[in-house]
Amino acid sequence: MENLENSTDCKETVSPLNNSGSTVNSTVSGYDGKAMGFVLVHAGAGYHSESKAKEYKHVCKRACQRAVDRLRAGGLALEAVTSALMELEDSPFTNAGTGSNLNLSGEIECDASIMDGKSLNYGAVGALSGIKNPVLVARRLLSETQKGKLSAGRIPPCFLVGKGAEQWAISHGIPACPTEKMTTKFSLSGYKRNKRKMELAEQVETKRKRQLCGHENDFGCLEPVGDILVAGEENNSACLDTVGVVVVDREGNVAAAVSSGGLAMKHPGRVGQAAHYGCGCWAENARDVSLYSTAVSTSGSGEHLIRTMLARECSTAMQAENAHQALLEAMQNKFISSPFLAGEDCVLGGVIVLRCCTCGEAQRSEDIQALLVEFLWSHTTESMCVGYMSAQDSKARVCRCWWFTYCICALSSSRSETASEA
Amino acid sequence: MENLENSTDCKETVSPLNNSGSTVNSTVSGYDGKAMGFVLVHAGAGYHSESKAKEYKHVCKRACQRAVDRLRAGGLALEAVTSALMELEDSPFTNAGTGSNLNLSGEIECDASIMDGKSLNYGAVGALSGIKNPVLVARRLLSETQKGKLSAGRIPPCFLVGKGAEQWAISHGIPACPTEKMTTKFSLSGYKRNKRKMELAEQVETKRKRQLCGHENDFGCLEPVGDILVAGEENNSACLDTVGVVVVDREGNVAAAVSSGGLAMKHPGRVGQAAHYGCGCWAENARDVSLYSTAVSTSGSGEHLIRTMLARECSTAMQAENAHQALLEAMQNKFISSPFLAGEDCVLGGVIVLRCCTCGEAQRSEDIQALLVEFLWSHTTESMCVGYMSAQDSKARVCRCWWFTYCICALSSSRSETASEA
Repeated sequence: MENLENSTDCKETVSPLNNSGSTVNSTVSGYDGKAMGFVLVHAGAGYHSESKAKEYKHVCKRACQRAVDRLRAGGLALEAVTSALMELEDSPFTNAGTGSNLNLSGEIECDASIMDGKSLNYGAVGALSGIKNPVLVARRLLSETQKGKLSAGRIPPCFLVGKGAEQWAISHGIPACPTEKMTTKFSLSGYKRNKRKMELAEQVETKRKRQLCGHENDFGCLEPVGDILVAGEENNSACLDTVGVVVVDREGNVAAAVSSGGLAMKHPGRVGQAAHYGCGCWAENARDVSLYSTAVSTSGSGEHLIRTMLARECSTAMQAENAHQALLEAMQNKFISSPFLAGEDCVLGGVIVLRCCTCGEAQRSEDIQALLVEFLWSHTTESMCVGYMSAQDSKARVCRCWWFTYCICALSSSRSETASEA
Repeated sequence: MENLENSTDCKETVSPLNNSGSTVNSTVSGYDGKAMGFVLVHAGAGYHSESKAKEYKHVCKRACQRAVDRLRAGGLALEAVTSALMELEDSPFTNAGTGSNLNLSGEIECDASIMDGKSLNYGAVGALSGIKNPVLVARRLLSETQKGKLSAGRIPPCFLVGKGAEQWAISHGIPACPTEKMTTKFSLSGYKRNKRKMELAEQVETKRKRQLCGHENDFGCLEPVGDILVAGEENNSACLDTVGVVVVDREGNVAAAVSSGGLAMKHPGRVGQAAHYGCGCWAENARDVSLYSTAVSTSGSGEHLIRTMLARECSTAMQAENAHQALLEAMQNKFISSPFLAGEDCVLGGVIVLRCCTCGEAQRSEDIQALLVEFLWSHTTESMCVGYMSAQDSKARVCRCWWFTYCICALSSSRSETASEA
């Protein structure tokens, strides 16, 4: 947002709900008709250790900058969202692309998807190995879908998995990348540690079964190993989580994308929410029945996010008048207390949400296209790292939120008709 | 339905909508408290050639019988739905399990999923080779999910694909089956024919591009090759389509399942709606906010069914008072005219739907549990083959509906309080 004045950092207050949220209303006005647009990114809902905090912030900033560069160059939402996500995938600190969690066999298998709010087209890959940027394959699948039918009238695929996805990517000019190049010292040491812990847990479990003592917590010293938490001391802990991006461009088109290396020590072939339609990301331009364009990207326990279709649910909720209240209610009713997760003791996830609509007042007074953009995030996890930037900003802002906090960010602009705290 | 009198075959009338539908309202009353339950199956929405009509009818009948056998033996919906689906997969005439379409590489890769309306749990496999009954793997994934976390707190997977899914199945006691055993003379000849047609289409396309004549229909002699239509003369045409089952058991629990060999000549790794949550099948028991238990299974062009999430949309629609009207509207607004399929020239698909609620009158008068069961189907394809049976019926009924038809089936029972034409 050009001419932004009086920006404040996140304020953290205790929320009555076991999740966090942030909301910013700001009018994004373009002077030259090219510089408009906005990006919101996340580097996962999970646990972000203090020691690595700088890295997460840096990669979020770089991702925002990549998207804004594309927007400034006249790129649309789909291009900007892809650029930002590739930056997040390339960071060795995120659980996506390079540095992804290793599966049970010590291999990298990635999930990613992308959705275009204008065409409502979608592309996704699951359990994909050997490609540096899985989102690039998802993006290419989406593009190919838009070209129409294949030879002899065949419908082009929107979702490819495994070896077939890798072959398709290579045959469409996306270069192969050896797994070794995508494996980091960090992901390898996490794998070895988790493997030891699993073996120990299995030994204890076998012993427990033999003794028939029936105490569930006999191996309670073990911590969860998953998308969110990697067992170990604080210094060894890591944000090994899904990344995501939502963008609105100068034309008001929205796009969303998500990418993940999936659960640590997952079974080979496991596909999480990042590849699942309606679960990992969602983007839908405003049309007859919906006033707002919405874009959503999720992070957290893949199976929980699949069964609750959280991305689509949040998008639907965003048509309510009060975006902030709507997101809190969606997180409570459609995720934390969802009947689809009844019996689950630990529901971990987070979302970033962007919604926008044409700002009528600005149009009348200045005869330029202006968009009212609201962006929010919410999570049930200990922390979530997000970054955001307007195409008129000189630099991105980042925010790391913590467990039980409710964050309020306020931006005001001399050119903005609306810049209110929520 | 025990004591059924005056059953009528399907009546076919021209519908103003480009789809078909059938609805039957019947009260399913149990005498011994064990024999209650109902099954509805389909052998795909597509084109069912006259020459193979008998086979499709037979396999639908056998599938119904399998489900009813389980229900009579005290089995619940989830067991019955699995049994019926395995029967459909085992038929060499259906495009699921044995006899599945071959992909571009001449291999079988299957998708399947299952959903339990009681627990709302779900299991799915995609692009799975080497397993005779893919639904059995989906079913086992669902069961394992219900057992809680894996060692070291890992969340069990609900969706596995490719080689990893095959390895998981084998490690869980499901036997491997060589692809050759699942390939039939029928699927192999279809593959060879389609390959020739594709090569011809590609030659024509190359020539067309070279000549730059720009006529889209230069290779218009070719017919679509897909889930629904296999190019060729009528005698060689086949129903090579997805199969599905919906069941309600004596306790009023619903379950749904779907299985598919996918598009003919699909790219290896392509996953269709049959493995996609909310798209291939849906089952949801009645609860606070919903009066009816609903179960849905879909068939058709996988990519279209994914992008419209047709199974879940139909389930949601089924909470309206008039089931028949609700399904027609859902098919029109959420599928045929869906904004998610804007620009698609040929939207092909079909659904089978079951909804039920406790029948209060019967409970009062006879002090037994009774369920009002309604079942419907609708399709935009040339034909759809369905079968249905109550646990009290002596045999299944089957129905093959055609393009532009609207079918009305009416059953009446001496014990049924409600048996109305819709």
